[in-house]
Amino acid sequence: MNTFFTITHQDKNSRARTGIIKTGHGTIETPVFMPVGTQGTVKSIDQDDLRALETEIILGNTYHLHLRPGEDLIAQFGGLHKFMHWNGPILTDSGGFQVFSLGNNTRIKKSESNVGETIVDVQKKHIEQGKLVTIDEDGVTFRSHLDGSTHRFTPESSIDIQHKLGADIIMAFDECTSDTADASYTRAAMERTHRWAERSLSAHQKFEAADYQRFLFGIIQGANYKELREASAEYISSLDFDGIAIGGESIGYNMAATANILDWVNPFIPEDKPHYTMGVGYSPVDLFTVVERGIDMFDCVAPTRIARNGTLFVHRDINPGYKININNAQFRTDPSPIDPACSCYTCETYSRAYIHHLFRAEELLAYRLATLHNLHFFLDLMREMRVAIKDDNFLELKKTWLG
Amino acid sequence: MNTFFTITHQDKNSRARTGIIKTGHGTIETPVFMPVGTQGTVKSIDQDDLRALETEIILGNTYHLHLRPGEDLIAQFGGLHKFMHWNGPILTDSGGFQVFSLGNNTRIKKSESNVGETIVDVQKKHIEQGKLVTIDEDGVTFRSHLDGSTHRFTPESSIDIQHKLGADIIMAFDECTSDTADASYTRAAMERTHRWAERSLSAHQKFEAADYQRFLFGIIQGANYKELREASAEYISSLDFDGIAIGGESIGYNMAATANILDWVNPFIPEDKPHYTMGVGYSPVDLFTVVERGIDMFDCVAPTRIARNGTLFVHRDINPGYKININNAQFRTDPSPIDPACSCYTCETYSRAYIHHLFRAEELLAYRLATLHNLHFFLDLMREMRVAIKDDNFLELKKTWLG
Repeated sequence: MNTFFTITHQDKNSRARTGIIKTGHGTIETPVFMPVGTQGTVKSIDQDDLRALETEIILGNTYHLHLRPGEDLIAQFGGLHKFMHWNGPILTDSGGFQVFSLGNNTRIKKSESNVGETIVDVQKKHIEQGKLVTIDEDGVTFRSHLDGSTHRFTPESSIDIQHKLGADIIMAFDECTSDTADASYTRAAMERTHRWAERSLSAHQKFEAADYQRFLFGIIQGANYKELREASAEYISSLDFDGIAIGGESIGYNMAATANILDWVNPFIPEDKPHYTMGVGYSPVDLFTVVERGIDMFDCVAPTRIARNGTLFVHRDINPGYKININNAQFRTDPSPIDPACSCYTCETYSRAYIHHLFRAEELLAYRLATLHNLHFFLDLMREMRVAIKDDNFLELKKTWLG
Repeated sequence: MNTFFTITHQDKNSRARTGIIKTGHGTIETPVFMPVGTQGTVKSIDQDDLRALETEIILGNTYHLHLRPGEDLIAQFGGLHKFMHWNGPILTDSGGFQVFSLGNNTRIKKSESNVGETIVDVQKKHIEQGKLVTIDEDGVTFRSHLDGSTHRFTPESSIDIQHKLGADIIMAFDECTSDTADASYTRAAMERTHRWAERSLSAHQKFEAADYQRFLFGIIQGANYKELREASAEYISSLDFDGIAIGGESIGYNMAATANILDWVNPFIPEDKPHYTMGVGYSPVDLFTVVERGIDMFDCVAPTRIARNGTLFVHRDINPGYKININNAQFRTDPSPIDPACSCYTCETYSRAYIHHLFRAEELLAYRLATLHNLHFFLDLMREMRVAIKDDNFLELKKTWLG
């Protein structure tokens, strides 16, 4: 009997479901959007803001926290929860994604904008910059993006770091291959990722019981090859993980591919474990796409990152793309809130004109107000979805939102 | 009977006094430190933060708000209070200080750091940059630091802009001469400032009663010339202003000179009007210096500006200069709050190590937490001072703080 995850309702008309994840730092209602706090802070807001937003869980990035301030310092403080004063659940990634994306992998497109650059351009640039990562059977050697120093992650060291950080949910160490890799490389990488998954699991199981339990998720890879995705789903599902993640360059970034991949892997993954798509949430539409396919958890830097550029989520009646750019001149004199249907602090307090002014004047308050809005917008949509699923109304809600 | 300002207690052992200023947006207990919200926001914090800090009044800068977003837009929103959603008292400066300091005046040293530059260097640079301001009897022509466009302030236009901004307390338009100016220029400028003071008063009196009263302060100039300061104090005090400000390059920037100037003008200024030193508050010491001399109001960008560099106020037992730089390596592993004797949100919640990490990682949260601390530190010291004055213990409190 898995008390970590309980499905509370299965939608009658789709694979969408609601559930409860129990951790030593509180309970998470799923499906859940998880704000990203890369360096021990969700950029521009504080931990009281997170609580006021009713954030259920946040992410930390193992790669960044390992480089600065270091897992040993954080462990000295009793773990990331205490270091950053966030007493709710935390999930840490394995560091693999950043190693590759800040190294020589094309997935840099996912985390940085390289408009107009081809994959070859990016690879060349990285090689010139000496950012090349070296993958071998045992692990990955890479350079710090901060100071160029050389570091090495293995499945064992990644799990060790994550235990030191003390996240409630930790991730197996994987290689997230580029979508441009051929089938043969993708298969080899996937098989290595499977061996790393077993090693991650075994390293994790060696840790003695701590004051609260840490749960380990495995990650399905295989890029956009159906056969590989199925094989990976089957293999990862066969191991004793607490949850199943679906990774890859396309996930979240190419939603058509994401939908296909989720449909491919669905028959192979256990229903009674949480399903997590890594990097989903560029737009409200994306959340519907994955929730409809039985996904319980997802995270993305987009809502907070675009907020800091002045790109703010709105309902479809305001903009069919669900976004406005508050820097636009049309908002200079606009007394309305960002979205009149939004109940966030920013919308209940400040006008578009004021926020426009703050962005134009490059005032720091702009970034906080925008971040609060975008996060509230997503978290509120998740609350709406959970209610709808419980009422078997998920597809109706989707129709209301997407038309 | 002046109901705008009431002295509630006069310290028996110094000129320090407590008082109450009544405005249409609430009551201010004096002596009061006024945080600066240059562009319609106190940098990095929001208006709820200001309320949580028990901020009694904030400043707005006429020069900046005139250039962006413009007083007409703000008037369209019903004034600065409504535009920025701050319902407490607001004071606006006349724009004069910025015109001169962002123009060709050496007082730029006060608002920008030009380490190693001589006054001549700064003047040359400004002339090369075409930033020269032109002063004539009627007013000042200057260029915008944003786009180089030409603008003009006169006493009448400054008062007009301030009425449009809708501040509760507004300032007469003055010329803040450089301390390097000779006695003859300083006298001429002071006399012009006196004529501008009369014109400001007359422009102000032409406005019809609004939904709340705006109060006008005159400004004493005269640089570091005793005779001029006395003459200016006598003249400004003879006019029907609601309060008396003491301006000048030295004020706040050179505290020995500030103390002298305050002692010179003291016999000439009316006791029953609020006394305001413009630009005071680089250090806790400075607050004692002016309060001891009967000053009721002061403002300074320093607490918020240095906060964003990681310079944080502490009590003397931690550092004899009342400041630590949280970027220093010694704080990397330090679990204590910034100042264990401080009860601000930052100190009650986060460690020096965490704030050090945020600054090193250039995380936006760093600036907010540091700003909240420095403002609380000053506002709390003011609360301590007011209690001490009421108990005739001001000099004892000063001794406790300064040794």
